[in-house]
Amino acid sequence: MTTSRTLYSLCGSDTSRPFSPHCWKTVLSLAHKGLDFEERPLPFTVIPTVEDGFSKTVPILRDGDELVSDSFEIALYLDETYPERPSLFNGEGGKAMARFVESWSQTVLHPAIVRIAVLDIHNMLDEPDRHYFRDSRTKALGRPLEDVVANREAEIAAFPALLAPIRRMLSFQPFIGGTSPLFADYIVFGALQWARITTGLDLFADNDPVRDWFEGCLDLYDARGRSVTAA
Amino acid sequence: MTTSRTLYSLCGSDTSRPFSPHCWKTVLSLAHKGLDFEERPLPFTVIPTVEDGFSKTVPILRDGDELVSDSFEIALYLDETYPERPSLFNGEGGKAMARFVESWSQTVLHPAIVRIAVLDIHNMLDEPDRHYFRDSRTKALGRPLEDVVANREAEIAAFPALLAPIRRMLSFQPFIGGTSPLFADYIVFGALQWARITTGLDLFADNDPVRDWFEGCLDLYDARGRSVTAA
Repeated sequence: MTTSRTLYSLCGSDTSRPFSPHCWKTVLSLAHKGLDFEERPLPFTVIPTVEDGFSKTVPILRDGDELVSDSFEIALYLDETYPERPSLFNGEGGKAMARFVESWSQTVLHPAIVRIAVLDIHNMLDEPDRHYFRDSRTKALGRPLEDVVANREAEIAAFPALLAPIRRMLSFQPFIGGTSPLFADYIVFGALQWARITTGLDLFADNDPVRDWFEGCLDLYDARGRSVTAA
Repeated sequence: MTTSRTLYSLCGSDTSRPFSPHCWKTVLSLAHKGLDFEERPLPFTVIPTVEDGFSKTVPILRDGDELVSDSFEIALYLDETYPERPSLFNGEGGKAMARFVESWSQTVLHPAIVRIAVLDIHNMLDEPDRHYFRDSRTKALGRPLEDVVANREAEIAAFPALLAPIRRMLSFQPFIGGTSPLFADYIVFGALQWARITTGLDLFADNDPVRDWFEGCLDLYDARGRSVTAA
């Protein structure tokens, strides 16, 4: 069966190593819904040229005649469009609180991963992406990328403590979504998968239940997350 | 109408100033469900003597013949027992993710509030609670209470940054529960109400949307949260 579904994602010079946290959220969202799709990883500077410049950022999902961008919007779209398939939110409360999980991941995990991985990400890119990335991130972060990672070892050492909320939650239930994973799990997975693919570092504590949870997420849907190896 | 519902909560020497974060979660949970109850604030050392030693910690809810302890268990109990009244979780996904919100609050907000408020809390107590509290908290925290609050000013200055996940979420929706508050909101409210009643400090940023959300929570259910003033 040919599919009419295309996920535009992000890659560096190696198109077989898509690394965007947001795109990984969507990869697992589509797998969760059991929907076939073709993934087309793009370099940063190519994104604004596809689909008539529909979005400056990925993920972008083309689903037949529909175009949707933003991983959270895509998850909402998938649940609304395919209500007969497993839900990504399990109700209105889950939909609302997934936004809190996203906000935690993006205000706590993402900045810490940037302070560890930003130069690794830069080095995965070809020109002209390197130029674009260095320029835009230097402006956004307010200092040269080399300065951002100056305390990299301390950031790595401090990272496991940031996972404390997940660690405590896992003493009650196996997934953020409860007995099985939901979009909220893919949100946090996306951040850690981004770190895994770009740095290859182990950012967990000794005997960390969060590592076990993450490994379990890597195994989901025919081990889709393992299809890209750690750096 | 007389009520057969009793909430055992926590107080210091002033029984009109119950301050436990977990009990405040349950006060708002009961109000959310529209259920009448009588609150009986107890000193720490009296808790193990009520209801035949049912629980060492509050909240304890007596609901007719039923006894339930733990704020999360009580919220689950209330939704199960009174399904015709407004839900505290809005579905199974909300139930699961509320556990993540609780875990975030207890691993991030609670320890920071302890480092700010632990001596204030001690000073609100009568003997023999002061002795019990100082002894148990010194053991749990591994150092004298005076040492725990040694960096109090720095902790106060650092606190608004801890609220970043709530702050970002509020750019999408007015409550953690979505368009209206759920138990997840009462979880975070409980922590901040605990800080408000015991310290009287403003722990928000300038022009902080989180302050507006908190003030809105204080206003809920005939401003129940304002019935106890800031220290």
